[in-house]
Amino acid sequence: MADPTWRIRSDAKRQAILDAIPQKWRLTEPVPPPTEVRDVTGSYICKYLDAQEIEITESDAVDIAAKTTTGQWSAVKVTEAFCHRAALAHQLVSCLHEIFFDAAIEDAKKLDQYFAEHKAPIGPLHGLPVSLKDQFHVKGVETTMGYVGWINTFQGIPNDPRRGTEESELVRELRSLGAVLYCKTSVPATLMSGETVNNIIGYTWNPKNRLLSCGGSSGGEGALLALRGSPVGFGSDIGGSIRIPAGFNFLYGLRPSSGRIPYQGVANSMDGQNSLLSVLGPLAPTARSLTFVFKSVLSTEPWFHDPLVLELPWRDVMVDQTRELIQKSKDSTSLAFGIMYYDGFARIHPPIHRGMKLVEQTLKRLGHTVIPWTPPSHAKAHDLASEIYGMDGGVDLRHHFGLSGEEQAPQVIVDQDGVEMKASAIAQLNIAKREYQKEYMDYWNSTAQLTGTGRPVDGFICPIAPHAAVIPQQYRHVGYSSFVDVLDYPSVTIPVTHANKSVDVRPANAPAASLEPHVEWDYDADTYDGAPVAVQLVGRRLQEEKMLTLAEYIGEEIARELKK
Amino acid sequence: MADPTWRIRSDAKRQAILDAIPQKWRLTEPVPPPTEVRDVTGSYICKYLDAQEIEITESDAVDIAAKTTTGQWSAVKVTEAFCHRAALAHQLVSCLHEIFFDAAIEDAKKLDQYFAEHKAPIGPLHGLPVSLKDQFHVKGVETTMGYVGWINTFQGIPNDPRRGTEESELVRELRSLGAVLYCKTSVPATLMSGETVNNIIGYTWNPKNRLLSCGGSSGGEGALLALRGSPVGFGSDIGGSIRIPAGFNFLYGLRPSSGRIPYQGVANSMDGQNSLLSVLGPLAPTARSLTFVFKSVLSTEPWFHDPLVLELPWRDVMVDQTRELIQKSKDSTSLAFGIMYYDGFARIHPPIHRGMKLVEQTLKRLGHTVIPWTPPSHAKAHDLASEIYGMDGGVDLRHHFGLSGEEQAPQVIVDQDGVEMKASAIAQLNIAKREYQKEYMDYWNSTAQLTGTGRPVDGFICPIAPHAAVIPQQYRHVGYSSFVDVLDYPSVTIPVTHANKSVDVRPANAPAASLEPHVEWDYDADTYDGAPVAVQLVGRRLQEEKMLTLAEYIGEEIARELKK
Repeated sequence: MADPTWRIRSDAKRQAILDAIPQKWRLTEPVPPPTEVRDVTGSYICKYLDAQEIEITESDAVDIAAKTTTGQWSAVKVTEAFCHRAALAHQLVSCLHEIFFDAAIEDAKKLDQYFAEHKAPIGPLHGLPVSLKDQFHVKGVETTMGYVGWINTFQGIPNDPRRGTEESELVRELRSLGAVLYCKTSVPATLMSGETVNNIIGYTWNPKNRLLSCGGSSGGEGALLALRGSPVGFGSDIGGSIRIPAGFNFLYGLRPSSGRIPYQGVANSMDGQNSLLSVLGPLAPTARSLTFVFKSVLSTEPWFHDPLVLELPWRDVMVDQTRELIQKSKDSTSLAFGIMYYDGFARIHPPIHRGMKLVEQTLKRLGHTVIPWTPPSHAKAHDLASEIYGMDGGVDLRHHFGLSGEEQAPQVIVDQDGVEMKASAIAQLNIAKREYQKEYMDYWNSTAQLTGTGRPVDGFICPIAPHAAVIPQQYRHVGYSSFVDVLDYPSVTIPVTHANKSVDVRPANAPAASLEPHVEWDYDADTYDGAPVAVQLVGRRLQEEKMLTLAEYIGEEIARELKK
Repeated sequence: MADPTWRIRSDAKRQAILDAIPQKWRLTEPVPPPTEVRDVTGSYICKYLDAQEIEITESDAVDIAAKTTTGQWSAVKVTEAFCHRAALAHQLVSCLHEIFFDAAIEDAKKLDQYFAEHKAPIGPLHGLPVSLKDQFHVKGVETTMGYVGWINTFQGIPNDPRRGTEESELVRELRSLGAVLYCKTSVPATLMSGETVNNIIGYTWNPKNRLLSCGGSSGGEGALLALRGSPVGFGSDIGGSIRIPAGFNFLYGLRPSSGRIPYQGVANSMDGQNSLLSVLGPLAPTARSLTFVFKSVLSTEPWFHDPLVLELPWRDVMVDQTRELIQKSKDSTSLAFGIMYYDGFARIHPPIHRGMKLVEQTLKRLGHTVIPWTPPSHAKAHDLASEIYGMDGGVDLRHHFGLSGEEQAPQVIVDQDGVEMKASAIAQLNIAKREYQKEYMDYWNSTAQLTGTGRPVDGFICPIAPHAAVIPQQYRHVGYSSFVDVLDYPSVTIPVTHANKSVDVRPANAPAASLEPHVEWDYDADTYDGAPVAVQLVGRRLQEEKMLTLAEYIGEEIARELKK
């Protein structure tokens, strides 16, 4: 039986991506199955790289920019090293949708020429490669967002003049700051999934444990960054899509409040749904890399170029105030945190529990107050998010899958055959959401009575998911991440440790999988072994500067705790 | 034929409002018809007041607070003076929905006791009376919003525990700042009208010319403030509802961007519609009064109490930067403004044209650059706003009118029998609105090429309506105000002059009324004689500090220009 037409197109596209990898960077031997080699990060991928490439690609964005903005490393050298490593990454875990290394190297040459001429960088990101989730439009590059029906079109529209000419606002800003763009990373078609799978590139695996998912929907970013095929990338988050892949790949990831990073000109699912906005944010191996690119983007004054961005420049004063609170460690007016192990829905797996305990221990060792976080019902937040995701009854998804006739992956959390809501019902939903946000805010304020610092908690710690990087098709509850989007709070993923089958054992009284609705107990110590474990630090709306400062501090102190 | 039940209820409510006025403050003689006495402001209303009451009520909010926060005037004395004048105002033009003078005087007594005890005020608004549009909930006071069906209920819900106990967040904040609340002002039922008319209090007339409307929907505020029955009040704006009554009553009025003043807990029409948000803002006879109360409200950190408010404290730095630009007057890098006389829809009447010319002249005399403002189609903005206002097909209006069976006034710009939009159509509308906002933003940026200052314009000047305070039922085009809400820009109404039948004559070539769609040419020099003329100063999103600073400066300079 012949393949349907869409398979021919998706096969061709998949092959075209591979063909964009220069011959010299192609793997000549087959990649061993995950049952033989689970982890392809670190020494595995490094065997294909030379010492200088390793030095460059294992530096973080801050260190790289320190060298590329001062002429110590040429932009071309750095770009080539990341292109090479990204090419390897894609061949190992299938994490790229678009490869445009030639254009990147041309851009890098121009940057080097600029530097040679002016003895100064173009901007703070001069010569820094930045990867982008395949929602961003880049001139001369396709955007499929994982839809077969988008191949050779502009967002599914054939013969649209914007095809190949459009550039997203953030892309323009990154270029103006000196960044080099070289690849776009894989996503689940629809973006509405905690795994990354589509009919073009297939499944993006977790590089640390190839039995598991890289997460989603910014899953390609997560996998590429875990393999150090990129120093920093941008993803999007409407239910956890930055924080999940960050957490599943031992990365930091920032989900900012809406209105800080420009979404202007970026492709999206269910665009125009404005009850709960998707937001863009960075992922990187170090917290300071997030701060660096976030601050750099704000320096371009995006509020004059995207009508939904707020005129809110980077606030050093908020950083200073946070640092003062950190300094006060052990003082009764120092930092206070909430901590939540259970959202009332899904019990967390042993590795996540251990990670949470480690963070709690670390904060207490530092003399900060830690109180139990017992907020308004997260089940309510979960319901609100689900209703909003399904608001259009699947019209958008149906349309985009329908362009090619391709199938929808089972991991997508939105149905194609829902009921489309009407204006008055949407208004009621918006009110319910606002009332929930108010209730949560009042709860937050009420913790001033409990912290002993005279203030409410400065932030709170909770899991990102019930499990570490998940077994395919076992991601059943996104409520640990989606409630943050309902509240529009900033949240930073903080990597903590790795699942360890010898210590993270299933307790005797653990509930059986799927016995109760939303109970998440299909824990398998052996399969999860080695998977990254992370938590998230959640802050008050628009306090990105405070959360980034705290995330860097807490991350460093966790590392210290682990060395004890 | 007997009146339907709702008339009995509305009559009783109207009478109850009048009955709340103490006997000593009731007018004993009938008010002469407007054909005899058009203007009941100034000397007309003052004949019922003693010298001290006049001194107090003709001071602005800043001067009043300077005396009440230092013990020079007692809160009781000030409150009584405004209660008296508000009582007169209501009897002259029917501008109040709720009168709670007794509670206000009790509150004022407590403030005086506090001051006597602490030798310090409770807050910056200590002892300052503040009037509120009848959307705000105040403990112990009803909210009808002009709906007969809301009498004896909470927002139309009978036996709701919130009835009489609820207080809006802004009300709480005003109290915490020391403000005294004493009355709520009239609105058109639905709030969707540029005139103020409902089946409870009837029609609110313009105190300066009682042949004309006071504007709407914050019309009661406009009328009360014009009569100095209040030093400052709060209204709301989704299509011009603060700026129209401000302009029609020779007042300053601020429509801030959404997210600065808390709407939490305030009744609304079509609540939950979040494609275009209604916003709250102050109206007052002086620009500095707006700044004073706006800044005071921000000092309460409303972002910790309303989830939709942005953490954006009052920015003195933006005020200072603006003042520096003002100082540079005559310098090529000083201020630059756009000016727009015609929106492509409705030609403005002669008084408005003269007012606009006066402002242009003033700016040029001061050495500032003035360029023609030729933005993207305002017809498009008008269409977007209309589609959004009608999004629910009238479900909300039908419900609230249906509670009593009362009739909808012809001035309401939303139909009860429209078609309710579905989620996917709303999403498309949201996209169209965002694209329009982007197009307008790009146009604004492009003026950097034209100003000669090296920057785009600092703001632009345009009419608020084609006409001065309007002849009843002749308000045909709200596009001059509603485009600002579509863009979510801050805008300040600046009063300029008054219509004058001897100079503002109908030009020979003026189009006849209603010959073309949207042409607004039913100008009648005699009827409009004496009506206030105003313009609006529109700024970039969230630049309220800059616009308030400029409005104060421009207003003062216009006064100087008129004295020449």
